[in-house]
Amino acid sequence: MTPETAAVSPAATSLAINLPRLKSDIRGLSRIGRNPDDGGVYRMAFTDADMEARAWLLDRIRDAGLEASQDGAGNISGVLPGRDGEAPRIVVGSHIDTVPCAGTLDGALGVLVGLECLRRLRENDFEPGVPLELVAFTDEEGRFGGMFGSQAFAGMVNPETLLERADLHGVRLADAMKSHGMDPWRALDARRRAGSVAAYLELHIEQGPVLDRAGDHVGVVEVITGLFRWTVTLIGESNHAGTTPMDHRRDAFSGLAAFIRELPRILEEHGSPASTGTVGNVALQPGSPNTVPGVATFSLDVRDPSPVVLDALATAIREALSAIGRQRGLMFEFTIDSEIAPVACDGTLIELLTNLAAQLEIPHRRMPSGAAHDAQIIATVAPVGMIFVPSREGRSHSPAEWTAWAHIEAGANVMLGAVVRLARS
Amino acid sequence: MTPETAAVSPAATSLAINLPRLKSDIRGLSRIGRNPDDGGVYRMAFTDADMEARAWLLDRIRDAGLEASQDGAGNISGVLPGRDGEAPRIVVGSHIDTVPCAGTLDGALGVLVGLECLRRLRENDFEPGVPLELVAFTDEEGRFGGMFGSQAFAGMVNPETLLERADLHGVRLADAMKSHGMDPWRALDARRRAGSVAAYLELHIEQGPVLDRAGDHVGVVEVITGLFRWTVTLIGESNHAGTTPMDHRRDAFSGLAAFIRELPRILEEHGSPASTGTVGNVALQPGSPNTVPGVATFSLDVRDPSPVVLDALATAIREALSAIGRQRGLMFEFTIDSEIAPVACDGTLIELLTNLAAQLEIPHRRMPSGAAHDAQIIATVAPVGMIFVPSREGRSHSPAEWTAWAHIEAGANVMLGAVVRLARS
Repeated sequence: MTPETAAVSPAATSLAINLPRLKSDIRGLSRIGRNPDDGGVYRMAFTDADMEARAWLLDRIRDAGLEASQDGAGNISGVLPGRDGEAPRIVVGSHIDTVPCAGTLDGALGVLVGLECLRRLRENDFEPGVPLELVAFTDEEGRFGGMFGSQAFAGMVNPETLLERADLHGVRLADAMKSHGMDPWRALDARRRAGSVAAYLELHIEQGPVLDRAGDHVGVVEVITGLFRWTVTLIGESNHAGTTPMDHRRDAFSGLAAFIRELPRILEEHGSPASTGTVGNVALQPGSPNTVPGVATFSLDVRDPSPVVLDALATAIREALSAIGRQRGLMFEFTIDSEIAPVACDGTLIELLTNLAAQLEIPHRRMPSGAAHDAQIIATVAPVGMIFVPSREGRSHSPAEWTAWAHIEAGANVMLGAVVRLARS
Repeated sequence: MTPETAAVSPAATSLAINLPRLKSDIRGLSRIGRNPDDGGVYRMAFTDADMEARAWLLDRIRDAGLEASQDGAGNISGVLPGRDGEAPRIVVGSHIDTVPCAGTLDGALGVLVGLECLRRLRENDFEPGVPLELVAFTDEEGRFGGMFGSQAFAGMVNPETLLERADLHGVRLADAMKSHGMDPWRALDARRRAGSVAAYLELHIEQGPVLDRAGDHVGVVEVITGLFRWTVTLIGESNHAGTTPMDHRRDAFSGLAAFIRELPRILEEHGSPASTGTVGNVALQPGSPNTVPGVATFSLDVRDPSPVVLDALATAIREALSAIGRQRGLMFEFTIDSEIAPVACDGTLIELLTNLAAQLEIPHRRMPSGAAHDAQIIATVAPVGMIFVPSREGRSHSPAEWTAWAHIEAGANVMLGAVVRLARS
């Protein structure tokens, strides 16, 4: 990206997406894998529903007159050729797999908006200077660990990945692929040539309440938040709940409760307004109602868009846990389950998307993404830009997930404008 | 009990138990059901180890020249007949079943001290005025819910009890009894005639740290603590840990943490120095590291020797949980899992035991029992007295459970003195 790419010509905003057609696609895809009992969508990677959705998407890509294909990692592709077939291409995409009991928009919206953009350009006989490509990445949501398709695309998959990944029930990724007639080793061929992608753009629902509460219709992502995830153990002493006086206890859970009370202060003092800290899982040992818990084990998920802030938070949290341990006679241990560095979106793409939203008079804001996305992986090999649309009440990963049609249309038109601008450059 | 019973004649303290013989019994019984891998004793009710221990105990009772028997609930009995065979009898006892991975003293010590007392009197040709009886009660620890033997003894067992009780693996009490050749319906015959027990005495390890830390060798129990046990649910909203800002959360676990921090204040303001409050088990939903927990379910065990204090604590806790719910946008529900009223030991027996300890120059104190005991059940049909001996570091229900031999001897001699005194009255 060069800075001049961000300037928006009038032509980039004169076309608009076909909302009724996009609605029809969203409804069509949402029927695949839907459970009528709970209203949730169950389209986890390499399930029959996922395979049905892939076939459906390939049909839509062909109907649109795009070149349809599927790579060795199962990534679905639709290409609108450019005048220079060898030039680095513009890729738009997201994923169509879901978590269990999902809503209709997470991932699917980004893929269908990308499809609509390329279809709209194709039917308007728009001839891009460089190839435009829609990609639906495999297993973003993580039946087999997550981001498999984008990792294969970015060259981050190796034979060990293929052999080791398995779902919660022990089904191996390689076996799931084979059961659908795919050769797992071909996933190693999904890697794109260095320099072959000029830009990657992804539209996604925010999955949080910020846009909804602020009344903005579009968010331009500046950075995808980094995180660290620990398993923390506080160790005191198990004792009889009836016979151990309160002041003789070394109650591991009381240490955890003290930490939870400290956490907002730690985030305020050492974090940024975007910092989050979450304890989502707790186990007490021995876990009996009549025993003072001697061991408390809990998950700790901390996120921030800045690596410096993440380091400061990790230090402050270790100090707080050590102090709580000293005060209460508890030992404190932790293991690092994952550390993901924050990923910055491309500055020129941020400018372009912001300018387009302004020109289209769409209420918008720049913001971080608290959730992980395929864009985070693709950023290792290409400049990335992300467009958010509001999640009503911040709900996602739930049948309650929704976005107003007007906001979907606004986000899609920003995407279309960006693709036009980039395709001409 | 009449007040004059508490006066202690010199004769009541002139006899002493045979410590080497008691040690030998403690070691002998501790070998039954011991797992060499973890050093723990596994003698849960109606397991093979429990049955082997019963046979062993019946042999010891016969060896001691006492009348051995087992009632329909499996309670083991050893009687030293009195001059008046029909007079209300003095019963001493406890239990020989254990929790899984138990120590050697919980329950067993009370039974073996009772055996030693009656054996000592028998070999000294002591002729009691009333019958003296040792009882080892069935399933105090609760494989099938707990206190089965003492409940049958006190007439609290009915056919429904027999049909409904089952262990954690679904094995029914009735089937477990049948598998050892017992007729479960005969448990209904274990009930003793009203007025047939003049006094019940039980020696037990404290299972808490109070005597050990105070340096006392014997505790005389004044009251067995009552308790209520609730399952409390706080309901907020599950949300994505990365995309939900801290000030937009309705985190159920943060409500629980706030409650844990309030609990010591509630116990201080509304409780007594003997009050305890314990959260021993917690489950968060959905329980995923990257999701703000929408539901926190936890056990709450609150104990105090006074029913008035227990009521005050229940009210204060409800108010605190309601306030926390209002502050944090959480709903609050609870179900009552059990409520056990405090049970007072007999005033005359408390006096007798205290006077005996003083006369024997044993450092002692009066104290509540925080744990439940068979004595609590027997108190519904007879005056009860309890002697505690120190638990080293307050440990129990663990292979680390231990009491110094000198303290065991001290407690046993108080028991012997009390039996002599009561047998003569």
